[in-house]
Amino acid sequence: MDFFNYKNGELFCEGVPAAKIAAEVGTACYVYSKATLLHHYRQVADSFKELNPTVCYSVKSNGNINLCKVLAEAGCGFDVTSGGELFRALAAGGDPKKMIYAGVGKTDDEIRDAINVGIAAFNIESEAEIENIDRIAGEMGKKAIGALRVNPDVDAKTHAKTTTGRKGNKFGVDIDRAETFFETYRNLKNLHVGGIHIHIGSPVYEVQPYIDAVAKVIELIDTLTGRGHKIEWLDLGGGFAVNYKTPDQALPVTEHAKALVPMLKGKPYKIALEPGRYISGNSGILLTKVLYRKVSGPKNFVIVDAGMNDLIRPTLYESYHHVWPVKPDAKNLFPDRNADRLPVDGEVVDVVGPICESGDYLAKDRSLPKTQRGDLLAVFTAGAYGFAMSSNYNNRPRIAEVLVDGSTYKIIRRRETYEDLVAAERI
Amino acid sequence: MDFFNYKNGELFCEGVPAAKIAAEVGTACYVYSKATLLHHYRQVADSFKELNPTVCYSVKSNGNINLCKVLAEAGCGFDVTSGGELFRALAAGGDPKKMIYAGVGKTDDEIRDAINVGIAAFNIESEAEIENIDRIAGEMGKKAIGALRVNPDVDAKTHAKTTTGRKGNKFGVDIDRAETFFETYRNLKNLHVGGIHIHIGSPVYEVQPYIDAVAKVIELIDTLTGRGHKIEWLDLGGGFAVNYKTPDQALPVTEHAKALVPMLKGKPYKIALEPGRYISGNSGILLTKVLYRKVSGPKNFVIVDAGMNDLIRPTLYESYHHVWPVKPDAKNLFPDRNADRLPVDGEVVDVVGPICESGDYLAKDRSLPKTQRGDLLAVFTAGAYGFAMSSNYNNRPRIAEVLVDGSTYKIIRRRETYEDLVAAERI
Ligand SMILES: Cc1ncc(COP(=O)(O)O)c(C=O)c1O
Ligand SMILES: Cc1ncc(COP(=O)(O)O)c(C=O)c1O
Repeated sequence: MDFFNYKNGELFCEGVPAAKIAAEVGTACYVYSKATLLHHYRQVADSFKELNPTVCYSVKSNGNINLCKVLAEAGCGFDVTSGGELFRALAAGGDPKKMIYAGVGKTDDEIRDAINVGIAAFNIESEAEIENIDRIAGEMGKKAIGALRVNPDVDAKTHAKTTTGRKGNKFGVDIDRAETFFETYRNLKNLHVGGIHIHIGSPVYEVQPYIDAVAKVIELIDTLTGRGHKIEWLDLGGGFAVNYKTPDQALPVTEHAKALVPMLKGKPYKIALEPGRYISGNSGILLTKVLYRKVSGPKNFVIVDAGMNDLIRPTLYESYHHVWPVKPDAKNLFPDRNADRLPVDGEVVDVVGPICESGDYLAKDRSLPKTQRGDLLAVFTAGAYGFAMSSNYNNRPRIAEVLVDGSTYKIIRRRETYEDLVAAERI
Repeated sequence: MDFFNYKNGELFCEGVPAAKIAAEVGTACYVYSKATLLHHYRQVADSFKELNPTVCYSVKSNGNINLCKVLAEAGCGFDVTSGGELFRALAAGGDPKKMIYAGVGKTDDEIRDAINVGIAAFNIESEAEIENIDRIAGEMGKKAIGALRVNPDVDAKTHAKTTTGRKGNKFGVDIDRAETFFETYRNLKNLHVGGIHIHIGSPVYEVQPYIDAVAKVIELIDTLTGRGHKIEWLDLGGGFAVNYKTPDQALPVTEHAKALVPMLKGKPYKIALEPGRYISGNSGILLTKVLYRKVSGPKNFVIVDAGMNDLIRPTLYESYHHVWPVKPDAKNLFPDRNADRLPVDGEVVDVVGPICESGDYLAKDRSLPKTQRGDLLAVFTAGAYGFAMSSNYNNRPRIAEVLVDGSTYKIIRRRETYEDLVAAERI
């Protein structure tokens, strides 16, 4: 579900023609829909309403402060994984009491900053880290609060690079070691460990891995409670998938709630969620323009002005992003986006960027309507891990980000300049 | 060959202890050696001296203006692939007459800028592009100069993402179409195509693919000359490999010269080269600090303060980078760096960063001397495609870059701040 739709033969972002934004802001650019962002945040909050959850938007998926501001104003909390993300969440007006801080490599400075602003909790990933946070809080004369991230050892069935809940990965503590962990750290002076955290991977297309993981942690919490540990909250993490290929590829989060709410209702602990992609993913598209067409050997290439530095997911994770013209011919004006639907009078092309690598592509062997120089293409479901992972590779200034709200839009991150590229090097 | 060596039990960058830089600049940071940079530039220039080549450093491998300045002062030219790289090369004091501009997606603005400053030549990648450059030059009332990039269809035996000389990739024009190309564009009004360009991939560990490619283009040039086309220069591209794993993994460029110079000596055309990695690769290391150690399932993790946002090559290309302590114990103080040498009393670990992805690692299942919190590690051969590909993913400020010159060093790019992260979003 999103508010990017074809009307009068062209793509609209809510009430604004994509082509108008491209003409005025230039290409390539990311375009976000405020209504889509809020829709998904509210869908998460509403589906799990019976549990009265704290929804902590995962800043890493898309940290633009203007998007975070929209979410903070709607009451959303934040999941941060670095000092930079904490800074962003605060700059956006986020409430520190709704912020949780995860990540295997928290530095001392980052820990100090987080304690100072009074975040809700650290999600703690190792023995060494818990001792470090306790030590730092002690030096500061403050009390820190933490949840133990446990590794439930379930198969999230996602890309090897983004599965995070299997045994033997760097995240959390193996669930069978959790009890010992709580016993060992029962009486820390300056860190109170009162929660359990899981995050199994991203994107996860099935509900079952969540059910399996939650069943395991409920059992763990029961055991811990039996041993006199008071568990005050359970953080279920994020990872809920979105529709990259077809309109029904990803289950709406309502389905997760249907399965998980009955398992957790009435439990004496609070619930937190950390969705990133689910909120930002469908909220953004990447607009790009066709620069050249070429034929090479047996292949057709459509060369566009967005590259792997702007959107690295296709080459890094072999991710599929739906690509379609902003103004398709009448035959190819489909009511929904669906990878299985072949264009009429189309062609099979690679959509590639200007970067000097064979890995620089947005789509490979893709059936698309015929396009020519100057045509605009939209790359859908690009709101999460799109701009967030972008770089200046090949010394390309990072592109502009635009937020549409109804019939108006504004630039929420200006396009970088050449001078921006070198500013920090002028020594 | 480089100037990163162990002396008195610790790693020195030329005459400066790596630990001193880490203490003063902080970690993580990139540290470059000026002598190593110049050594490799000169080695390229000297090996091919008989051909009197124009050596054009490939800015994309590492574009820091302070490094480019060192090379420009030594007489080096530049290979650029974007407006941003042209800007960098000029800011570094590069001579436009020694600049060539490659890339499949040149925008109109980029083409205009390049014509305006009077670069030596465009390396032209397609029919559509040649027509576009001719048109733009015409509108500007100027003459542009170009070389045709041909795709020699040789197997560079490198990673799929970085092989660029096979049939059916997006680069250049198939060699069997080159003749037609020259015939078609014989009489362009505003663009003179006087050169041939190849670039077969990167990194290429063998000489044979270059020999094969050069043999094919020599034949092509002979044919073209026979048909009355005047070919004034041949650009051999870059791609020369460096030692990531063992001291003799990559052939020195002298070996390439030994094979190629006899093939090209006495030809009536000039020679250009575009080495990037060969010049910058061994010139840089990434210094990082151990934050935590942890055990998860069967695995040992060493968590450091550099992540995939700082060096993406391991996860993107499955690249090997040698990692070793800055101050190894005496048993592990080896005279050379060699992946095949096992540490004494070592352990097998994953060296991972703070980013919330399983793909965030610098080394996997690596035998290393035992390390503990606070220890410094050096990641070698990180000068090329290291900082150049770095991002702010997980909202991590990009790290500092340092240039060592003999017994002194200076910061050539300051560490980014949190405010830097959001500055362009303050709207
Ligand atoms: C701990 C944690 N929470 C939440 C998320 C957000 O995942 P997603 O954006 O798929 O919801 C991640 C993603 O890496 C994570 O590591
Ligand atoms: C056209 C061209 N020339 C030169 C290079 C530099 O390659 P290397 O850094 O391996 O020398 C590249 C790398 O992508 C390239 O595409």
